[in-house]
Amino acid sequence: MTVQDLRQLLETNDLPALQDWLARHHPHEIADELGRADAVRAVLLFRLLDKDRALAVFEELGPSDQHKVLSGLRDQAFRDVLEAMDPDDRARLLGEAPAKFARHVLAGLSPRERTMTAALLGYPDGSAGRYMTPETVALRHHLTVGDALQVVRERGADAETVYTLPVIDDQRHFLGTLSLRDLVLNPPDRQVVELTDTTTPRVRATDPAETAARLMQEANLLDLPVVDSEDRVLGLLTIDDAVEVIEAADTEDIARQSAAAPWSGHYMSASVVQLARSRAVWLLLLIFAATLTVNVLQFFEATLEQVTALALFIPLLVGTGGNAGAQAATAAVRALAVGEVRTRDLLRVAWRESRVGLVLGTMLAAVGLGIGTLLVDFPVAATVALSLILVCGWAATIGATMPLLAKRLGIDPAVISAPLVTTLVDATGLIIYFLLARLVLGL
Amino acid sequence: MTVQDLRQLLETNDLPALQDWLARHHPHEIADELGRADAVRAVLLFRLLDKDRALAVFEELGPSDQHKVLSGLRDQAFRDVLEAMDPDDRARLLGEAPAKFARHVLAGLSPRERTMTAALLGYPDGSAGRYMTPETVALRHHLTVGDALQVVRERGADAETVYTLPVIDDQRHFLGTLSLRDLVLNPPDRQVVELTDTTTPRVRATDPAETAARLMQEANLLDLPVVDSEDRVLGLLTIDDAVEVIEAADTEDIARQSAAAPWSGHYMSASVVQLARSRAVWLLLLIFAATLTVNVLQFFEATLEQVTALALFIPLLVGTGGNAGAQAATAAVRALAVGEVRTRDLLRVAWRESRVGLVLGTMLAAVGLGIGTLLVDFPVAATVALSLILVCGWAATIGATMPLLAKRLGIDPAVISAPLVTTLVDATGLIIYFLLARLVLGL
Repeated sequence: MTVQDLRQLLETNDLPALQDWLARHHPHEIADELGRADAVRAVLLFRLLDKDRALAVFEELGPSDQHKVLSGLRDQAFRDVLEAMDPDDRARLLGEAPAKFARHVLAGLSPRERTMTAALLGYPDGSAGRYMTPETVALRHHLTVGDALQVVRERGADAETVYTLPVIDDQRHFLGTLSLRDLVLNPPDRQVVELTDTTTPRVRATDPAETAARLMQEANLLDLPVVDSEDRVLGLLTIDDAVEVIEAADTEDIARQSAAAPWSGHYMSASVVQLARSRAVWLLLLIFAATLTVNVLQFFEATLEQVTALALFIPLLVGTGGNAGAQAATAAVRALAVGEVRTRDLLRVAWRESRVGLVLGTMLAAVGLGIGTLLVDFPVAATVALSLILVCGWAATIGATMPLLAKRLGIDPAVISAPLVTTLVDATGLIIYFLLARLVLGL
Repeated sequence: MTVQDLRQLLETNDLPALQDWLARHHPHEIADELGRADAVRAVLLFRLLDKDRALAVFEELGPSDQHKVLSGLRDQAFRDVLEAMDPDDRARLLGEAPAKFARHVLAGLSPRERTMTAALLGYPDGSAGRYMTPETVALRHHLTVGDALQVVRERGADAETVYTLPVIDDQRHFLGTLSLRDLVLNPPDRQVVELTDTTTPRVRATDPAETAARLMQEANLLDLPVVDSEDRVLGLLTIDDAVEVIEAADTEDIARQSAAAPWSGHYMSASVVQLARSRAVWLLLLIFAATLTVNVLQFFEATLEQVTALALFIPLLVGTGGNAGAQAATAAVRALAVGEVRTRDLLRVAWRESRVGLVLGTMLAAVGLGIGTLLVDFPVAATVALSLILVCGWAATIGATMPLLAKRLGIDPAVISAPLVTTLVDATGLIIYFLLARLVLGL
């Protein structure tokens, strides 16, 4: 049965067929459909699941979809779902929910779960503390491998992961980590402290979750220990959460690159107003910035009236300059995000991008000269060609250095979007074009 | 000591200080510096590492950097490094290397390692087979937990992971998976088959690695079983490789979004020519497409000569339309990549984006009317305002539907880049503008 059929089943309220559909699909597939459905249908589907599967599906939902489903549940079902969530997932759900809803949730939890969730909520939004699981098995450094395995057996059932075991001293200070693999593969009389990997990196709970996640990716870690300011172990950031953090950051960067505000919802369940709102602010800023181009053209209006043919190439010229600038900006933002470029590389980046831009501009100038001569005449074509060289060199330099400058000033470099670069390059490109036109055409 | 100092040390060839620097840094930090250094310095640094650390650093390098380092090593060191690599990492290195180099590598390997690598090389580039590790511990279904732990102890040292254990029948057919966690937490006399999770998804070795990696992310899996066409277990895709696959796909999508060809190198070690080449093809295609705008303007040249003021708003109008189209295209490409939108949603997407575009256009029209009246006169301003409404509606619709159409035609939707949408929208936007101008101004 296809997903198309699911929609029909939902419309006809064919409950047995719906239950059959749910039984034959994976929690992550069901979660995907819940994310796409409206609130009423999502809750209907959710209630048809048996308890264990309902929890598995719920964990796969993003915070806004979790909120959507929870809001439609009655008190007992509501508490069951919340009680069974991992504390870190719960903290993130509450972090994005209205305060009234959050209080309602915390009041419904058992004291143990409430304490854990409240502790996580104490860390700043987007910090490693918000994403870590406090349910870990830590090993005292004086244990043997046999003792340690016993500790894992006793306390492992409650832990989110047992594959990375933080090793701690008597004051809970972080000494290193031991993997369950090493525990299983080594004889029971060996000392934990001998097998502990003391070079494992750790992060502070207040560090940004994205930094922590990218560190896990670079260092190929399954779990990353999270410590407090005195190096005491608070929990572990697990790879599944790290992957979500990285993907969310990438989605955000991609949205920003097109000058849209990032938002956490599902594309298909977002309303037209939500989509428009996420894009409106930047479009408004950009249209005000684009007023500059009107001013520039007004300044050169006399030139434009003398040679109307110059107007024909305005979209081609500003478009090409914008494209070259957008390419450079996107490359720089990504290189910064994955750590290939640092802010102190500013001058090196400017130097190489200016050359890249001039090389590309020269190539495009040859094309521009051909098109211009064919469609208009040689002098205008020569103006266009010369402008392309300078505009591309300028656009690539500005496009690549602006994200680095932004980062130096403490602004998210992804804010330097392709449309922003394009708009800024447009006005300067037109100045270059008309100054060259006066020179070449002798106006 | 900072990284800046490392450059100085490399220039002065201060070997003791370099060794000291290497000893105090993490493999992934050293790998990062190797990636940024030129070939000669990278090899120099690499040779200063002791054997174990050298391997750890080597595994952190991307294929092109691995190739850079290997090319500078003498035969024995070369073989040592290759022999110690995981078969899947080795296959990817060879897949991107020149044929001569690949033969040289295969000839130097021990028969066991050569067989594994050659088998992986038999799968298509970018397939799950290329990324899976064949070094896994599979469990026969009739074992007890105690037997199974014994199998893990005997064969786990050679395996890349022991956390996910595929459970197989006597013909090696896939039955499900068992986690090491469940093995450790359950009594030794329980049957493996009772604990096996039979709902674990698996992928074919020929399936795209990106699909497999996104499945792991959605279903929160540490390892994903890879099977052949008869459902026999070939290996596991591990989460660290899956994260790399996803990040590479995201980097590729981001590059494509700015109309640059994706390439696998490090930004700072790429030459000016390499950077220019990755961007040249699209810029050329786009400038040819932009010729359309010249044609359109030529067609309306008489109108333009009558009211030169119309020319003043060309960059603002095409720029704003381009921005609205770029936002919609980026949102659609990302929603497709993360699976929130499917190609059959085409009409729904077109319907909602046309409304989003009209809403945004109406808002921008108010601004355009103000700016236009202030700088020029009311009739031209009204033309600009009306054009903004229609152009934004059109741009958002085209921008969002083109990626879906591309995917339906079997083309990578990320090819529908913001610059491509912008360029295509420019010409149609100008037609709308001048037709409205004739109507409003009565020309």
